[in-house]
Amino acid sequence: MKSLILVAHGSRRGASNDEVRLLTRGLAEKAGDSFDQVSCAFLELAEPSIPDGIEQAVQAGADEVVVLPYFLSAGRHVAEDIPALVGGKQREHPRVRIRIAEYLGSEPAVTDVLLDIARSTTA
Amino acid sequence: MKSLILVAHGSRRGASNDEVRLLTRGLAEKAGDSFDQVSCAFLELAEPSIPDGIEQAVQAGADEVVVLPYFLSAGRHVAEDIPALVGGKQREHPRVRIRIAEYLGSEPAVTDVLLDIARSTTA
Repeated sequence: MKSLILVAHGSRRGASNDEVRLLTRGLAEKAGDSFDQVSCAFLELAEPSIPDGIEQAVQAGADEVVVLPYFLSAGRHVAEDIPALVGGKQREHPRVRIRIAEYLGSEPAVTDVLLDIARSTTA
Repeated sequence: MKSLILVAHGSRRGASNDEVRLLTRGLAEKAGDSFDQVSCAFLELAEPSIPDGIEQAVQAGADEVVVLPYFLSAGRHVAEDIPALVGGKQREHPRVRIRIAEYLGSEPAVTDVLLDIARSTTA
């Protein structure tokens, strides 16, 4: 069973966390056969935490987990904090394959999305 | 003359700001006829500032400026800080049309980009 966990920073502003939850529902609807379960987790300031999110996925039966950092730059959070938290859960569940995907900002297609937004603004 | 300014938060980490500058070069290469000039600006912690970025575009001849927030959520920065800074420059240059585009995280296509990243991770 494959699980996708979108990991966001988390905000003191509840509406920002809700935006992530809404996006997660959209991902779940579009995931098709790619993932059996899609959820979100937060590095800080919102629930569930990354370890709790992974734990929930494993308890729900996931034997393959993809953690996708919803971040724009490869700062300390992406380079160190998320890998450390994921690594801890990997050691707890050695038989579950937990992988960290590239962060959003690293994806070249973001350029096209930005240009689409920009062009629709001048139209 | 049309100018696109990608506005990022800015980071104490120089490499994160450089990621934005690299992305901006990619946007410039792909912009085609849509924009005559593409640049970036930062809300804080990096240069140029948003007012300076707009001023540079206007001095370079822009009579139409699109400010695109490179942000994932509609927090205070997107809802208040950027509009306030842009509004100030709009008052200084009433004959230049300055518009704020939707922020990246509001774009539904982000869902597809995330799914592509997730799928390529399990492949």
